[in-house]
Amino acid sequence: RVRVREALGALEPAGEVKVQGWVRSVRFQKGVLFLHINDGSSLENLQVVADPSLENRDLTFGSAVEVQGNLVKSPHRMQNMELKAKTIRVVGPCDTWSFPLKRKERHPLDYVRQFPHLRCRNNTLGSLLRIRSEATAAIHSFFQDNGYVHIHTPIITSNDCEGAGELFQIEMSNEARESAEKTHFFNVPAFLTVSGQLHLEVMAGAFTQVFTFGPTFRAENSQSRRHLAEFYMVEAELSFTESLQDIMQVMEDLFKTVTNTVLSKCPHDVELFHKYIAPAQKPENFLVIPFIVILKTFFFSCRISYNEAVEILKQASQTFTFKPEWGCDLQTEHEKYLVKHCGEVPVFVINYPYDLKPFYMRDNEDGPQHTVAAVDLLVSGIGELCGGSLREERLPFLESRLQRLGLTDAYQWYLDLRKFGSVPHGGFGMGFERYLQCILGVDNIKDVIPFPRFSHSCLL
Amino acid sequence: RVRVREALGALEPAGEVKVQGWVRSVRFQKGVLFLHINDGSSLENLQVVADPSLENRDLTFGSAVEVQGNLVKSPHRMQNMELKAKTIRVVGPCDTWSFPLKRKERHPLDYVRQFPHLRCRNNTLGSLLRIRSEATAAIHSFFQDNGYVHIHTPIITSNDCEGAGELFQIEMSNEARESAEKTHFFNVPAFLTVSGQLHLEVMAGAFTQVFTFGPTFRAENSQSRRHLAEFYMVEAELSFTESLQDIMQVMEDLFKTVTNTVLSKCPHDVELFHKYIAPAQKPENFLVIPFIVILKTFFFSCRISYNEAVEILKQASQTFTFKPEWGCDLQTEHEKYLVKHCGEVPVFVINYPYDLKPFYMRDNEDGPQHTVAAVDLLVSGIGELCGGSLREERLPFLESRLQRLGLTDAYQWYLDLRKFGSVPHGGFGMGFERYLQCILGVDNIKDVIPFPRFSHSCLL
Repeated sequence: RVRVREALGALEPAGEVKVQGWVRSVRFQKGVLFLHINDGSSLENLQVVADPSLENRDLTFGSAVEVQGNLVKSPHRMQNMELKAKTIRVVGPCDTWSFPLKRKERHPLDYVRQFPHLRCRNNTLGSLLRIRSEATAAIHSFFQDNGYVHIHTPIITSNDCEGAGELFQIEMSNEARESAEKTHFFNVPAFLTVSGQLHLEVMAGAFTQVFTFGPTFRAENSQSRRHLAEFYMVEAELSFTESLQDIMQVMEDLFKTVTNTVLSKCPHDVELFHKYIAPAQKPENFLVIPFIVILKTFFFSCRISYNEAVEILKQASQTFTFKPEWGCDLQTEHEKYLVKHCGEVPVFVINYPYDLKPFYMRDNEDGPQHTVAAVDLLVSGIGELCGGSLREERLPFLESRLQRLGLTDAYQWYLDLRKFGSVPHGGFGMGFERYLQCILGVDNIKDVIPFPRFSHSCLL
Repeated sequence: RVRVREALGALEPAGEVKVQGWVRSVRFQKGVLFLHINDGSSLENLQVVADPSLENRDLTFGSAVEVQGNLVKSPHRMQNMELKAKTIRVVGPCDTWSFPLKRKERHPLDYVRQFPHLRCRNNTLGSLLRIRSEATAAIHSFFQDNGYVHIHTPIITSNDCEGAGELFQIEMSNEARESAEKTHFFNVPAFLTVSGQLHLEVMAGAFTQVFTFGPTFRAENSQSRRHLAEFYMVEAELSFTESLQDIMQVMEDLFKTVTNTVLSKCPHDVELFHKYIAPAQKPENFLVIPFIVILKTFFFSCRISYNEAVEILKQASQTFTFKPEWGCDLQTEHEKYLVKHCGEVPVFVINYPYDLKPFYMRDNEDGPQHTVAAVDLLVSGIGELCGGSLREERLPFLESRLQRLGLTDAYQWYLDLRKFGSVPHGGFGMGFERYLQCILGVDNIKDVIPFPRFSHSCLL
């Protein structure tokens, strides 16, 4: 039994083999039956050549088959090997009439999105899922190879890390509740995590480098092409770090290493996106050429402060919906402009206004325009890809900030971390789906995750 | 700058280096100052040798330090290298009086469990987290190396896979809800996943081998040492599989490969558990010797059917709380007895009663004792470690079963999978925390996860 990928990559005829998969096309030509078989191991199909006597009325597009035969060199220029069938068994027929995917049709992404249980059998989603799998493995390897300890930060938490109100709350289902006391399951209100950062900071008090890679959640009532209610985030935290430069270096290394791995492991899958998906949708936003440039650029060539960013925006000829002003958050339109201004290469923006950022970011003690040591990485077509900061490791600074916010009691444990061998540290998070959008040029974030969850939609 | 692990492993004196970490001990001997420094990269500390003039009143147990000096061969038998300090800088002092961890004390696991934000600085938890990280990486590698595609199955779902009532339900938090319409965020009731299986089955219709490794949830009001409200599960699904044997083989290969990797990457960390944790607690349950035997055993040597298991239990001299009876679920006491009966090696139990198991398991069409093709892997001290089955791929069987359960409408999409190229398939799940309990001999599941969540407790 061989897989399609192995069969296609075989260097020599391999004698009799068995191939299992799903039929992508059936055609007759000059008295010969040709099938294309796919088993998900590669974008390319294996061509099966058979005597017409092996025809079967269940042998249709979408059916599952098992083919036994000899793997031989193909006379065709476009493929290396083909399978000369001895037997063809239809394992599971396909009701092609009601099957929403059709042969030879390039279904638009928003069409296949309606069928979350079947869209993985579409070429584009198949490629996406292989790329996603390779990128996931590459992220784990990157951190593993660089001496980071992987931490499973909790999904259910009693904290609200960002101080934002956009939280999902958790309770026992009605059924479960009936058989329990009428209190909170956890005694306290519990939420779905919006970030593993604070829990990684706990670990950064014992390990000098830690990371997490898991689901995070926002109850945002947004229908944007860049937001999901459930998405994946890669987060890292480094101890004994006193400079944003160290954080930015890890962001850059992570991006480049993972992207190079994906490019070398899934060249055809990536090519499909660059050829058919990215340019067809928004060529000006998702340029494949700058994406290749990204890998050869030193990100640091484009590092600007928030102050500089605001000046650039103020001098822009473009009119923005939100007027750029010192002290206001950068909007997506601003971020995209900054990337364009810098030549469509990734841009680091550092040192954001103190009052804009959460309590844990490190005070730069500057003025009169008071800032914290925060950094965002902006990329073409997406805007913010990564966000990070140095954390406030100094007990008195943190105490007075939490007190002003009325959060001292809730974050006693966080203050504790600064009492027992506190060290300068910092870290960042990267949105995994945005990363995939960025390298593949996919316009809608719903098309880079297997089962998208967003407001008004939770299919399956 | 070198890490403790690198310093200890250096083959040659390395000239001047900088080491950063936390102080594990300070002592004077014959006019020399000795420090032990740990930075989480290994269980072992690096010994620092210094002139007493470098003493500092902040240099205490728990403080964070940066030591500059020469890495030299140690004259002591127990260690390879030591650091001759030129400068010692206390980066962050430690208030030892209020620090709940004390020098030279072997704190019991239930003591450190009270301090989830500090317990990673305890030796045992440090070792656990390194092992957990290596095991996580090994699981990803195992599947990657064997051609599986990794799938992020969703955390939020509108399904209830197991048909159990023990679900957490999700809603917008009050704050988020105020700014939204008073409906469900997703329009439908949404829950935290109890298993990624059904979503993996979707993917098994396009890829022949898929896996997922993520958090799963149960709203069980249990204080057991084997249950958590949030735990991690490894799940795999294989297409074109007609035999439980294939599923069992993957379980065995996964267990052995991951365990061998952990043993070779973290020998000292594993040794700490086998020496100090496992035997001290429940020697009869957590035998280190059988654990080594496991790796050398062919699991298949201990494969029994449910029918045989019930006969063994009926003939047991032991009295059970729950009387063993055909058609009743095996209780933990039964599972543990079966493992003991088989000589404390892992035991596969196959073919469970049809009426005990969920709708998706494949009908064995036997009788009068009607069973399905299910398999559980039972291990010493834990009971059930893995559970799997062949899935019902035949449309008529599935239709009539769902109809009898009144679930036809809810699972229309699942029936669809059997209409469009259905293939025989099957898979399994392994509880990651139970796996760690099993190989390390840890009695309480709360001690093998960084932030345990269970009924009445959600700290941090």
